[in-house]
Amino acid sequence: MTRKHVTVLGLGLMGQALAGALLRDGYTTTVWNRTAAKADDLVARGARPAGSVAEAVAASPLVIICLTDYAAVHELLDPLDGELDGRVLVNLTSGTSQGARETAEWARQRGAAYLDGAILATPEAVGADAVILYSGPRTAFDRHEPALRALGSGVTHLGTDHGLSSLYDVAMLSLMWNILNGFLHGAALLGAAGVQATAFTPIANKGIETVNGWLAAYARQIDEGAYPAFDATLDTHLAAMEHLIHESEHLGVNAELPRFVKTLADRAAAAGHGGEGYAAMVELFRKPAA
Amino acid sequence: MTRKHVTVLGLGLMGQALAGALLRDGYTTTVWNRTAAKADDLVARGARPAGSVAEAVAASPLVIICLTDYAAVHELLDPLDGELDGRVLVNLTSGTSQGARETAEWARQRGAAYLDGAILATPEAVGADAVILYSGPRTAFDRHEPALRALGSGVTHLGTDHGLSSLYDVAMLSLMWNILNGFLHGAALLGAAGVQATAFTPIANKGIETVNGWLAAYARQIDEGAYPAFDATLDTHLAAMEHLIHESEHLGVNAELPRFVKTLADRAAAAGHGGEGYAAMVELFRKPAA
Repeated sequence: MTRKHVTVLGLGLMGQALAGALLRDGYTTTVWNRTAAKADDLVARGARPAGSVAEAVAASPLVIICLTDYAAVHELLDPLDGELDGRVLVNLTSGTSQGARETAEWARQRGAAYLDGAILATPEAVGADAVILYSGPRTAFDRHEPALRALGSGVTHLGTDHGLSSLYDVAMLSLMWNILNGFLHGAALLGAAGVQATAFTPIANKGIETVNGWLAAYARQIDEGAYPAFDATLDTHLAAMEHLIHESEHLGVNAELPRFVKTLADRAAAAGHGGEGYAAMVELFRKPAA
Repeated sequence: MTRKHVTVLGLGLMGQALAGALLRDGYTTTVWNRTAAKADDLVARGARPAGSVAEAVAASPLVIICLTDYAAVHELLDPLDGELDGRVLVNLTSGTSQGARETAEWARQRGAAYLDGAILATPEAVGADAVILYSGPRTAFDRHEPALRALGSGVTHLGTDHGLSSLYDVAMLSLMWNILNGFLHGAALLGAAGVQATAFTPIANKGIETVNGWLAAYARQIDEGAYPAFDATLDTHLAAMEHLIHESEHLGVNAELPRFVKTLADRAAAAGHGGEGYAAMVELFRKPAA
């Protein structure tokens, strides 16, 4: 049993992609799934099917688990009797930072080093350019970095706080939902004026690329806690937000999104940030609503 | 007076950048501003100062105007006595699509062809890679395309409906606000866990780039009116939105943004879109709130 031995527990679409990437990279890959048939394709490609969870865990120093939720992880691993001792457990199941920290403590009591991970990619990108974020002990990450890198070239160790990967995960999903909402609302607005979404897309793509390039400057302002307006002030943004609400109402599309965006900005302006740049909004997001 | 003659009315930061780009490209550039001193720098670089709005308009077949709002445009141009006849008026002032259509009709009565435009860029990008969108008669755009292209390489004619550039403008601003809100909320969330915004940025950049690459597929679904889930279903997104709300509350940061995002998605799921992809949310954005 060497570092070229890896076990994968859970063979949903993502688990199958993970095991497949390891096989392709020459790892001796032991697999287990509650419904054993899901292993068939991997076994045909050289994976070793384990007869039980205990047998699967015992087969490798690195155990990767990817299930529906943390409850399923505990249901599977709680009954083990010492098999986790001395191993590195990597949990790629989606959950909260609190769940990750609790599972780390649970693993510690069983003698296992624990890395929590978040896959910011679809199964198709696994084994290619998938971004996978890890948090937990650096030594465990370093020991198995080659195997973890086989799962996706965008592998990053965020820090020792086990909760970080879950936090990054939801922060990135939040960015995604907000981008998609802005795009879909824009498509609805322009659609009401007879413009196809496919016509709007190249300009949206270019605009998003431009805004993406500004984030580093916003981040520096956030870390410094000072928000001088290098482009428009929040007050200027507010005037344009009013235009968007007006256009949405005029065209009979949903105006809740622009109204919500303006409500937040109005509140930041009322708190004295009207003459500052948009990054000042972070002050509002830092505090719970009154 | 040839096509190499252009007049620029309004010399705020943006107007100065527009006139500067034309001068650099060899255009005979006539300028006018209410506060004449704002023309000094341009005049030193070869611009011709006009003594009045009428004189400025009479100097060129192409008249570009960029002021604070449409009211200021009318205040400046309403008193003219026939000088606009036969000219192309390009209005780069921010406003609503209705204002653009009304100004087009006003210009038609004065014998001028009218193009409404929106500058999706900061003054620094003007004359370089600025995206500037135009709507109105194609013939007027074609006749002056070289001069318009001197203002920014990302020049696009959207269509003959004069309101389109304003609509695209607010749709793009909306995308920007939504991206920034997602980023700033994420920075607040990770900040509460001790992560610097500058550490979050490279991962945010990569994630935004990935989502940007998905929009073309979302747009095709929107135009076809069918939203099969090619990645996650709306129901799957809802579970992750719950995680984000939980994390925000747990870390004591503002949870209004994720709650609002989930309220919209909940409503789309309740309307029967839970098993579809996220693009189905466009159906919700198309209708005013009940």
